[in-house]
Amino acid sequence: MKKIFPRRIDFFVLFDQSIAHAMAATEALLSLMENFENAEGKAKQIHEIEHQADLVTHDVMRKLNQTFITPIDREDIHELATRIDDIIDLAWACVDKMLVFRITRPTRDAVQLARELHETTKFIHRAFQELEAKDYEHVKEYCIEINRMENRIDRIFRTALGDLFEEYRNDAAMIIKWKTIYEHLEEASDKCEDVANILEGIVLKHA
Amino acid sequence: MKKIFPRRIDFFVLFDQSIAHAMAATEALLSLMENFENAEGKAKQIHEIEHQADLVTHDVMRKLNQTFITPIDREDIHELATRIDDIIDLAWACVDKMLVFRITRPTRDAVQLARELHETTKFIHRAFQELEAKDYEHVKEYCIEINRMENRIDRIFRTALGDLFEEYRNDAAMIIKWKTIYEHLEEASDKCEDVANILEGIVLKHA
Amino acid sequence: MKKIFPRRIDFFVLFDQSIAHAMAATEALLSLMENFENAEGKAKQIHEIEHQADLVTHDVMRKLNQTFITPIDREDIHELATRIDDIIDLAWACVDKMLVFRITRPTRDAVQLARELHETTKFIHRAFQELEAKDYEHVKEYCIEINRMENRIDRIFRTALGDLFEEYRNDAAMIIKWKTIYEHLEEASDKCEDVANILEGIVLKHA
Repeated sequence: MKKIFPRRIDFFVLFDQSIAHAMAATEALLSLMENFENAEGKAKQIHEIEHQADLVTHDVMRKLNQTFITPIDREDIHELATRIDDIIDLAWACVDKMLVFRITRPTRDAVQLARELHETTKFIHRAFQELEAKDYEHVKEYCIEINRMENRIDRIFRTALGDLFEEYRNDAAMIIKWKTIYEHLEEASDKCEDVANILEGIVLKHA
Repeated sequence: MKKIFPRRIDFFVLFDQSIAHAMAATEALLSLMENFENAEGKAKQIHEIEHQADLVTHDVMRKLNQTFITPIDREDIHELATRIDDIIDLAWACVDKMLVFRITRPTRDAVQLARELHETTKFIHRAFQELEAKDYEHVKEYCIEINRMENRIDRIFRTALGDLFEEYRNDAAMIIKWKTIYEHLEEASDKCEDVANILEGIVLKHA
Repeated sequence: MKKIFPRRIDFFVLFDQSIAHAMAATEALLSLMENFENAEGKAKQIHEIEHQADLVTHDVMRKLNQTFITPIDREDIHELATRIDDIIDLAWACVDKMLVFRITRPTRDAVQLARELHETTKFIHRAFQELEAKDYEHVKEYCIEINRMENRIDRIFRTALGDLFEEYRNDAAMIIKWKTIYEHLEEASDKCEDVANILEGIVLKHA
């Protein structure tokens, strides 16, 4: 019987865990950017968060394949889980590249991008709380905040990129390194915006 | 009652608008490439087109969530809207990067890539007109043209990329800048090909 | 009648062809890396494989649009065909970039990445054989192997990337070239992992 009528899965509990990992990963990234001492040790911590988040995402996908009835559309659950996982992967990729590139000191722009990214994940957390409470008006408000953050991060990214070519006029290797890291941060922010867009779609279906 | 039986949405009208924006954006990009004077002013124009196109895409997605019956499969509408939006985003990203990188003069290859990209969007426009007229044979013909253009753009892109490393042998920063811009143009062309592939799929389902 | 009850399509036969092309493309890539003589001729061979693989993928998509009953879920067939095609496209992109960049001698890391990538495609082949035989336990085992290979390739990629900046400290153009090629190889490996993840999902649905 258990196979035919499986226990209802609480996807919100799983999303809560995923988003907690996204907040923790971006917070650890920010703390690493602000204080680059013991970078290797801090990076290991972020890698561990990324690994834990992976397990949760696999769990979501596994349960999605075994469940008939879901609180929100299957494709939306799949997309949300993928995008949140992407945010964490990109936070890790950013740290990883700093080690691979043997960076010794983050740029001021990198610190600011990490700070804004962490702030954005907090809005994602709040948007999901409102979604679980079925307070769709507030979900929409937080989605607007996430979009606003994405615009802000994009502006910082563009200025940072332009400045890079001025500052490292004679050190193309440095341009390549930071361009790669900035792009990871900006892509993470894009994934946050994707989450907001999916949430707006869910709200519309329930309107 | 209006909620239960919503007015039938004319997705073709929305796609017409979207594609008009794609044609306008790539035309403005080409005109900027051909004459780089007042680049900032022209860039603002393209950014405005990109913004208007975003609103149309959001409109498509919103109406898709509220409509039961669609003239073509829901996923196809979703994919088409996304890909057309991507073309416009990439045209804008291309202009944006030229400003961010403080480019003062486009390369000859960049002008040609922009020209071919604009031509491709015209074929997309025609393919959609034939789709609306249910003239599936002509849809297929325009899809072949779009694929032909993509091949041509890819060839130009490859030559341009190779030449970059010869021409700017001693200016790696310049290589990075133009490689990024060329890649945006080539990716925009890939999105045009995606549109053609989705259209071919739609034609098959109606065969 | 044929239109209403089309002959059942054997998607496994098509996937067999696709995967055979993926194995052939990565094997030819490896052989090119190991012996770079007559690179142009060998590249043409890989391009031809890529073209043949494209035809098979188009065939899968066409038949998917015309078939009501499929042995595995439609979306899974679509995703698998897309990902396997991506692997072949990226193997070709890698070769293509070596010609475009006028590379004269592959790095040791590039050879090793190509070798591991080819090994991974063999595991994909075996996983599909077990899937067709409905031996789901063995499918899972091969998926674990594919994931293990992806981890290994990722480690090689990271070391190779870091070494690039040391070795070509004064030749940024060379860093750009090899970074691009390594990224294609690493992305191909990511696509292999995607295939494994989709296969694991299919196994779960049949559990």
